[in-house]
Amino acid sequence: MAYQFYYWPHIQGRGEVVRLALEESGADYDDIARQSVEEGGGKEAVLGYLQDQSLVRPPFAPPFLIDGEAIIAQAANILQYLGPKIGLAPASEADRLFAHQIQLTVTDFLMEVHDTHHPIASTLYYEDQKEAAVKRSANFIEYRMPKHMAYYERIITNNQTGSGWLIGDTLTYPDLSMYQIVEGLRYAFPIAFGKIGNAYPNLLNLRDLIAARPNINDYLTSSRRIPFSTMGVFRHYPELDE
Amino acid sequence: MAYQFYYWPHIQGRGEVVRLALEESGADYDDIARQSVEEGGGKEAVLGYLQDQSLVRPPFAPPFLIDGEAIIAQAANILQYLGPKIGLAPASEADRLFAHQIQLTVTDFLMEVHDTHHPIASTLYYEDQKEAAVKRSANFIEYRMPKHMAYYERIITNNQTGSGWLIGDTLTYPDLSMYQIVEGLRYAFPIAFGKIGNAYPNLLNLRDLIAARPNINDYLTSSRRIPFSTMGVFRHYPELDE
Repeated sequence: MAYQFYYWPHIQGRGEVVRLALEESGADYDDIARQSVEEGGGKEAVLGYLQDQSLVRPPFAPPFLIDGEAIIAQAANILQYLGPKIGLAPASEADRLFAHQIQLTVTDFLMEVHDTHHPIASTLYYEDQKEAAVKRSANFIEYRMPKHMAYYERIITNNQTGSGWLIGDTLTYPDLSMYQIVEGLRYAFPIAFGKIGNAYPNLLNLRDLIAARPNINDYLTSSRRIPFSTMGVFRHYPELDE
Repeated sequence: MAYQFYYWPHIQGRGEVVRLALEESGADYDDIARQSVEEGGGKEAVLGYLQDQSLVRPPFAPPFLIDGEAIIAQAANILQYLGPKIGLAPASEADRLFAHQIQLTVTDFLMEVHDTHHPIASTLYYEDQKEAAVKRSANFIEYRMPKHMAYYERIITNNQTGSGWLIGDTLTYPDLSMYQIVEGLRYAFPIAFGKIGNAYPNLLNLRDLIAARPNINDYLTSSRRIPFSTMGVFRHYPELDE
């Protein structure tokens, strides 16, 4: 049976790292909320599960994945669950723990990126927290972005197989998140990322390796890939980019 | 061989949920950075691993755990790894995924709590971001704290065994994090948490169940438990609590 994937239908958001894994693997899945409300889709489908007070294992927030009777939430948890089933997990337990560790670091980073434009509250408009956003973004650009980039670059560099991937000699699910991070930063912070990007040649190369995957290329050029916008995790506001 | 636990030696921080699990289980472990620098401890021990450019599986930040040749970072990842080994994981795969999902939600919440006092940047003093902290804390108290409390309360309520724990009929590692969250909120936001706490009777009861565990009681009354302070994740600043 097809995997049922639930995330907000108008943004990439925290769900995109899961969408990329489903697409790369060619897994049979339905992006439920992108179907029409009449078909049981729309954001109503997501809200239905979030508001269901009877669930024994409720999700706190999307994304979540339904596989038969299992409901699994948290993007990194979904990827850890799916990885071995869809051929995107490393083979050894040590490498699986490390893949998940990288994914959790990506999770933290995506929250940091989100908070560059929403440092006070998700419930407030950007315009009502712009002053704090300018300050947070400047610090993010100076310290946090390069710290994360250097970390991922180092992992690729230290991979003893020299494959260009993060772990071992084949693509695993956290590699796909590297694509998302590079693309997202290029969209949100074109000036700031442009200044430092070349310091991370292995990371940029990994981004290119992912983009050239046939299934990923199909996905990125399809309507299934939602464009970046000022609704998602990565947002381009020129005043935050310097 | 004893587990080697690495975290900053002067705060509970993001490492405390791991310390609680090690203590509850009675596992043999060394809290390395709390040993003297002469013994190979101190924050220097943590920094040594963070700055080692040669590691194939480097940690991005503490906490991390060394078990033989394995280095495992990210608190939730460590707990997932340790859980089955120290008797604090649920038995079924579905429950293990859910335990980890709860722990990842706790991870997100702890980052949100941290950012109530540091909404602009960890590298800046609190005093230099107090204005934004007041705004973020007000929003946190109004929306985020009750949303998380209600979620954990619901999980305990919906546990079909009626055990008072989050999952099944025995204590598992995310239960220990519920203790930490309740204690932390009571310390950081005594007024705000005092106003809403009674709406979550199962959560408060779970906190009491944990506090009454012999190993936890021993830990909490020992010098191994670092007190809350205005250095950690949970900080009490009266101007942020209303």
